[in-house]
Amino acid sequence: MDGSPHTDDLAFDVFARTCPSRETLGHVTGRWGTLTLTALHEGACRFNELRRRVDGVSEKMLSQTLHALERDGLVHREAQPVNPPRVDYELTALGHGVAERLLSLIHSLEAAMPEVMAAREQYDAARPSPVTTD
Amino acid sequence: MDGSPHTDDLAFDVFARTCPSRETLGHVTGRWGTLTLTALHEGACRFNELRRRVDGVSEKMLSQTLHALERDGLVHREAQPVNPPRVDYELTALGHGVAERLLSLIHSLEAAMPEVMAAREQYDAARPSPVTTD
Repeated sequence: MDGSPHTDDLAFDVFARTCPSRETLGHVTGRWGTLTLTALHEGACRFNELRRRVDGVSEKMLSQTLHALERDGLVHREAQPVNPPRVDYELTALGHGVAERLLSLIHSLEAAMPEVMAAREQYDAARPSPVTTD
Repeated sequence: MDGSPHTDDLAFDVFARTCPSRETLGHVTGRWGTLTLTALHEGACRFNELRRRVDGVSEKMLSQTLHALERDGLVHREAQPVNPPRVDYELTALGHGVAERLLSLIHSLEAAMPEVMAAREQYDAARPSPVTTD
C-alpha cells in the first residue's frame, strides 16, 4: 500500500538479518554452494566426482556444503543399495530452478571478465592506497 | 568441437580454481556482495544509507565489499564536490546486469522459503546425526 517494492509484500526478506531466507541465500551463494549447485545442474553425481569438478574444495567443505543444501531441500542424497555403498547427489526441482539462475549469473560474469580485468587494471593504476569516506 | 558445453568455448571458467572469474564470482556472491549489489539496484546510495539497508554489515566489511566491487568495475564511487565531503555509490552498467541476475535469484529464494522451511523440518526430524559417505 505504501509503495515499497520488495519488503512489504513478501513474508521473507533477505535484507533482514534474522530472516531465514538470508541463511539460505548464504548456502546458495557461499564460497562452495554456487559451484556445487551449478556442477549438479550437469546431472547426478557421486561425492568424489563432485569434488573433482569443484576444483579446490576440500572433502570437509564439500560435505558441509552438501548437507546445508540437502537440508534446505535443494539437493537430494540417494544412497544406492549396492556393495560397496554408493551415494548419488542430484538437484531437486527447487534446486534446479536455483541452479538455472546461478548459471545465468556465472555465464554473464565469465563473459564480462575482459571488462572486469580492464577495470581492475585501471583501479590499481589510479589508486595505490584507496580510502573510503562517506 | 568436442561438444563440451561450458569449458572449452570460453576463455574464463569459474570451475578452475586459478581463473580470475572465480575471484569475481566470490565478490559478487560473497556474504555481503550480493546484498550490496542488490541494494544499489534501487538507486545510488551513500555509505551510511547502504549500511542501514544491508542490515547487519559492519563498517569495515561494507568498505571492503565496496572496494572489491569497485575494483571489478561493478560499482562506481563518486566523490561529490561538496562540504562536508559526500561520496555516492552506484552500479555501473556491468554491475546493473549482475544485480538483475542476483535479484532474480533472491526473489525466487524468498518465494521458495516455505518449501525450504518444510524441507529443513523434515531433514532435522529424520536425521539427528547425519553422516556422509561416498
